[in-house]
Amino acid sequence: MPNARADSRLPDQLRPLTLEANIAPHASGSVLIGFGQTRVICAATVEPRVPSWMRQQGVTGGWLTAEYSMLPYSTLDRKPRDITKGKIDGRTVEIQRLIGRSLRAVLDLGKLGENTLWIDCDVLQADGGTRTAAITGAYLAARLAIQQLLAGGRITENPLTDSVAAVSVGLFQGEALLDLNYVEDKDAEVDANVVMTGRGQFVEVQSSGEESTFSHEQLQTLIALARRGLAELAARQAEFLARHVG
Amino acid sequence: MPNARADSRLPDQLRPLTLEANIAPHASGSVLIGFGQTRVICAATVEPRVPSWMRQQGVTGGWLTAEYSMLPYSTLDRKPRDITKGKIDGRTVEIQRLIGRSLRAVLDLGKLGENTLWIDCDVLQADGGTRTAAITGAYLAARLAIQQLLAGGRITENPLTDSVAAVSVGLFQGEALLDLNYVEDKDAEVDANVVMTGRGQFVEVQSSGEESTFSHEQLQTLIALARRGLAELAARQAEFLARHVG
Amino acid sequence: MPNARADSRLPDQLRPLTLEANIAPHASGSVLIGFGQTRVICAATVEPRVPSWMRQQGVTGGWLTAEYSMLPYSTLDRKPRDITKGKIDGRTVEIQRLIGRSLRAVLDLGKLGENTLWIDCDVLQADGGTRTAAITGAYLAARLAIQQLLAGGRITENPLTDSVAAVSVGLFQGEALLDLNYVEDKDAEVDANVVMTGRGQFVEVQSSGEESTFSHEQLQTLIALARRGLAELAARQAEFLARHVG
Amino acid sequence: MPNARADSRLPDQLRPLTLEANIAPHASGSVLIGFGQTRVICAATVEPRVPSWMRQQGVTGGWLTAEYSMLPYSTLDRKPRDITKGKIDGRTVEIQRLIGRSLRAVLDLGKLGENTLWIDCDVLQADGGTRTAAITGAYLAARLAIQQLLAGGRITENPLTDSVAAVSVGLFQGEALLDLNYVEDKDAEVDANVVMTGRGQFVEVQSSGEESTFSHEQLQTLIALARRGLAELAARQAEFLARHVG
Amino acid sequence: MPNARADSRLPDQLRPLTLEANIAPHASGSVLIGFGQTRVICAATVEPRVPSWMRQQGVTGGWLTAEYSMLPYSTLDRKPRDITKGKIDGRTVEIQRLIGRSLRAVLDLGKLGENTLWIDCDVLQADGGTRTAAITGAYLAARLAIQQLLAGGRITENPLTDSVAAVSVGLFQGEALLDLNYVEDKDAEVDANVVMTGRGQFVEVQSSGEESTFSHEQLQTLIALARRGLAELAARQAEFLARHVG
Amino acid sequence: MPNARADSRLPDQLRPLTLEANIAPHASGSVLIGFGQTRVICAATVEPRVPSWMRQQGVTGGWLTAEYSMLPYSTLDRKPRDITKGKIDGRTVEIQRLIGRSLRAVLDLGKLGENTLWIDCDVLQADGGTRTAAITGAYLAARLAIQQLLAGGRITENPLTDSVAAVSVGLFQGEALLDLNYVEDKDAEVDANVVMTGRGQFVEVQSSGEESTFSHEQLQTLIALARRGLAELAARQAEFLARHVG
Repeated sequence: MPNARADSRLPDQLRPLTLEANIAPHASGSVLIGFGQTRVICAATVEPRVPSWMRQQGVTGGWLTAEYSMLPYSTLDRKPRDITKGKIDGRTVEIQRLIGRSLRAVLDLGKLGENTLWIDCDVLQADGGTRTAAITGAYLAARLAIQQLLAGGRITENPLTDSVAAVSVGLFQGEALLDLNYVEDKDAEVDANVVMTGRGQFVEVQSSGEESTFSHEQLQTLIALARRGLAELAARQAEFLARHVG
Repeated sequence: MPNARADSRLPDQLRPLTLEANIAPHASGSVLIGFGQTRVICAATVEPRVPSWMRQQGVTGGWLTAEYSMLPYSTLDRKPRDITKGKIDGRTVEIQRLIGRSLRAVLDLGKLGENTLWIDCDVLQADGGTRTAAITGAYLAARLAIQQLLAGGRITENPLTDSVAAVSVGLFQGEALLDLNYVEDKDAEVDANVVMTGRGQFVEVQSSGEESTFSHEQLQTLIALARRGLAELAARQAEFLARHVG
Repeated sequence: MPNARADSRLPDQLRPLTLEANIAPHASGSVLIGFGQTRVICAATVEPRVPSWMRQQGVTGGWLTAEYSMLPYSTLDRKPRDITKGKIDGRTVEIQRLIGRSLRAVLDLGKLGENTLWIDCDVLQADGGTRTAAITGAYLAARLAIQQLLAGGRITENPLTDSVAAVSVGLFQGEALLDLNYVEDKDAEVDANVVMTGRGQFVEVQSSGEESTFSHEQLQTLIALARRGLAELAARQAEFLARHVG
Repeated sequence: MPNARADSRLPDQLRPLTLEANIAPHASGSVLIGFGQTRVICAATVEPRVPSWMRQQGVTGGWLTAEYSMLPYSTLDRKPRDITKGKIDGRTVEIQRLIGRSLRAVLDLGKLGENTLWIDCDVLQADGGTRTAAITGAYLAARLAIQQLLAGGRITENPLTDSVAAVSVGLFQGEALLDLNYVEDKDAEVDANVVMTGRGQFVEVQSSGEESTFSHEQLQTLIALARRGLAELAARQAEFLARHVG
Repeated sequence: MPNARADSRLPDQLRPLTLEANIAPHASGSVLIGFGQTRVICAATVEPRVPSWMRQQGVTGGWLTAEYSMLPYSTLDRKPRDITKGKIDGRTVEIQRLIGRSLRAVLDLGKLGENTLWIDCDVLQADGGTRTAAITGAYLAARLAIQQLLAGGRITENPLTDSVAAVSVGLFQGEALLDLNYVEDKDAEVDANVVMTGRGQFVEVQSSGEESTFSHEQLQTLIALARRGLAELAARQAEFLARHVG
Repeated sequence: MPNARADSRLPDQLRPLTLEANIAPHASGSVLIGFGQTRVICAATVEPRVPSWMRQQGVTGGWLTAEYSMLPYSTLDRKPRDITKGKIDGRTVEIQRLIGRSLRAVLDLGKLGENTLWIDCDVLQADGGTRTAAITGAYLAARLAIQQLLAGGRITENPLTDSVAAVSVGLFQGEALLDLNYVEDKDAEVDANVVMTGRGQFVEVQSSGEESTFSHEQLQTLIALARRGLAELAARQAEFLARHVG
């Protein structure tokens, strides 16, 4: 019999997903996403300009840049701001690069016009899975921002080619668990983050045995579990957008 | 007849005040405060330690530090993060120092124990008056955090000696206006921020005619207008705390 | 009977004012100003160029920027240079912004041409009131620099619309004192800096009860005391300029 | 018939592996590793001290930290040094974190004593796969350094529990290729880096479709191809160590 | 016949030397030194503490650290402050290291007690030779500070073993000139700075043909010329100290 | 009888010189130079562009910039990277400025075209004399890079007007020694670095008695010793280039 999870979930059960649109009205699109107690403000802002390296290299179309940050009160022990420490830590850099790649994989930059879509993900409360919640919410914020661009006639075609969502899976005391919370994540032997589109194509698969290793069979199990969770997240994203974009 | 304000307020009328407790559950105390469309996350976090300069200089008691930041999507044009620019801008420094002084004026540091109370104010939506909303909300967050310290037996006496709130006033097209929104603030000839305790004592009076000057009489008018607004804010703070602290 | 001040001044008496023109001959205008033992090098330099943000935003006219620094040997305990610590401290930022706003309030930027007037204030000896001495001396340095621009035919009209000076006042052991020295400033219950033009218009009023609060009546007393001191400083500035500009 | 690779390799063929021991004699162990034209200096240095966070948190045993850098002349267009730009770029951060996790996965920190094993990987010539060459060489440098610790009696037992190596695989024009060089890597549709131990356990699997996506079947194909390459690299590592450690 | 120098000096003639003691009264010792129009504030401050590396390495005695800076208004075109540019430029680093070595060469650190002697040299007006003026003045400031330490009983013996001064020499249009001003320095083919003690021992000889080269004979000529100027500077230092230290 | 040197060299004997061409094939020219155990990677890279200050000031021709760094494993105790400490240390700044000046002294920038020649010197193993080895090797790397420019028709004439090399000399226990290794350098009473061209013209002479002083006669002895070593190095450079450039 499997070990009970601390929050009584089944091994293959997602945490409750909550979504609140328009949390930051000055953004072009925004969402407050909750994966259980993990809550992330995801905002998409359109800047009518592209990075200078694109202009210099003659690359046409638009760009998407993502930034991620944990608000200082998002953790149980206050986390100093990056600017106080004077540098972005390595984990943050990894996460914002991952968010950026994940969104660009479903974005036809050529159809974005000469715009930069800024994706900002600020963690309001951290309980594991902040990067996967961020990607899942960032897609929704981006979709809302695109809708505003379409409505305003600034672009004529939706440049998003698919939806995208992410979830974590891990081996915890030998058992494969879906959507790890902080306690599970901290002690997991293996930890994987999987990013997948609504049509079931992978964008990123990152599996790591931090101080440990894992077998080929374990990897297969984890990926299969993630795919099931991601199908459910994609369905929930579609429902949300049906209500807010139509 | 006075000019109508863009949002139809009377010259001496505050914007609608909104308060949502516990917006950031991992903080010791937190509030989402709204002065009309200006919305600021105010969080108070207790760190069981004091700055090293206090230990080195043999100063006993606790400390309070405040940090202020505008989230990148709080403004209509996206505002780059401090860490991206690599430094805190001058305005931010001024504001976080003001928030810190304002809170310390009503805090008996000797009764705080060897704790640091971190005050974090992150602007979610900016429409003028972010520093005054931040101070008004930060007091409430601090009070909630103190309640948690008292409930947990970590301190035995409330170190807050009074409440504190802040409001802006200004001369706009020659007329004294209370609680300026962004458009009014941007074009005001004179701009003042007044910080006052619940008992009506001043903590700070800062009046500036940026590219302009003002008379002694105009200063008197502005201060009187601010005092009326601050009395109302103090009453609203008291109501909120009656519900949440009892 | 009032408490005697350590330097035997009356409560409403300024410290001896000393002024030495042309302390830094490579500047366009310069003054070494002394408020008693506080001595500040104030220099104004003209750069025939405006900041890039002005050009980008199509703003015409000139600009004025102020920088303030304490030389390492200006204090009894050596003060490390900003560059050694790698950042400007918050107090310095506040002061240089205050100096800049104070000077711009009496400067018609449109008449300055496409020039930037750099104001540099470096404290040679610190004994309280360095920011008020800096503003008072910076006006004189600016006036000398303007004279040089006029003499050289680079501008045709004096863009300074009035003189400007500043003084501190404070409550020390319950008594209102003018022009605080370091010992008085350190222990003052309330501390105010007032910036006023030669014609008696306010530019800035900043009153703060750092760890304390103050009443409306106390504020009135302090402002009245500051106005008297500022009238005297304006007269002394006029005398100095009569000798050096004519 | 498969497309010929530019360097005439078969799709599942590694580039020539070259290994030169003791390239940096002041390090405890060092190797110059070549994956074809990609050449990386890998050095392991022992510092008889652990990071302060370990001492503060009471964690016993040793630590391993990895740093990665591209020498400015390693690329065809000169790459500015990090210190010139003032910050480490995101890609470098990701790579040095990956190298660190990969080595720690086969290192029993408890058996390392109170030592920090510094792993430095400096790319002398870059032609794709610098991170995989770095991990593969870093293991060898670490093993040589451990040998020196054992020989000097500073530790009594080899803390390395297995060997570790890494290789890249990718889909290039629809075909799965092993050990991509720069040209292949730049244009690959999907790119994966796989880190595996000598016993065939995974340490990391990172698969990314940067501007693209990939199917479950494609992922399986890539992982299988990587495993074959990694088995060969593990054998070559063992031969090298047989000569140099015995 | 030699070319006339712009300021009518003979080739082997120093510029007028001016010395004003106690320019910065809060320092332990200070001097405003002038080499013609080059004027440098030199201050020596005693800090009753040594750098942490000395305590960690168990080095006894005191230390001397020198810092050099050009005030922004010291040059005809305003020179931005180091803190504005965010870094110290290479020339400044070289000069402050040179000043430090020069002073330490005549300082018996063992007799300084556990004190750090901070030497600060801030250029008020720059017209060539700022580093040589700085060294020459810094010695005097240090001597005055030592006198204060001796008078206060904080040390019992003068740790200065000799005086030290510096001068520049150069080849300008083929002619060897002493004590170059800015115009001469800028166009000199070869430029040397020589630091010598009162007893005629060298501390530093730095000769550089920036974009050019020089012969052995030219070097000999320059060194001989510098020695003559340095003998004169040493005499003038002795006179100054006879008046101020006795 | 002179003291034996630790490595049995005669006082006027250079360490074994080793030269390996093309150590970094992506550079335009590169050399691994060894002065005994001191080994430095010297690379020259051509960038078809000049610094922006040249374009702004209308200076024609090319430029040469040098950077110097010690690899972390080049010293017996690991040396942290500059980027980790966040700044370049003073010694590094001095050295890279010296390398740059030395190379520019034999480079006719007008004949370089609108190119920047980047000189990178990275110390692989440090045993004293890294800056002199760097200069000596950098000249060879530059010459190889120039040859590539000539061969590719990017310039039509060799802009190098002479060769350049450098060597250290010092007084160690009263004896003048050539080409100091680390142990000798660390304890030398006087230390000089001399940079000379192949035709025997000086480029730089830097002699310093760090915590000490030296006489005119000692300086003469050191310079004479350096000249002898430099003549030998120039001959060895010519031999190397005869083989590699022809």
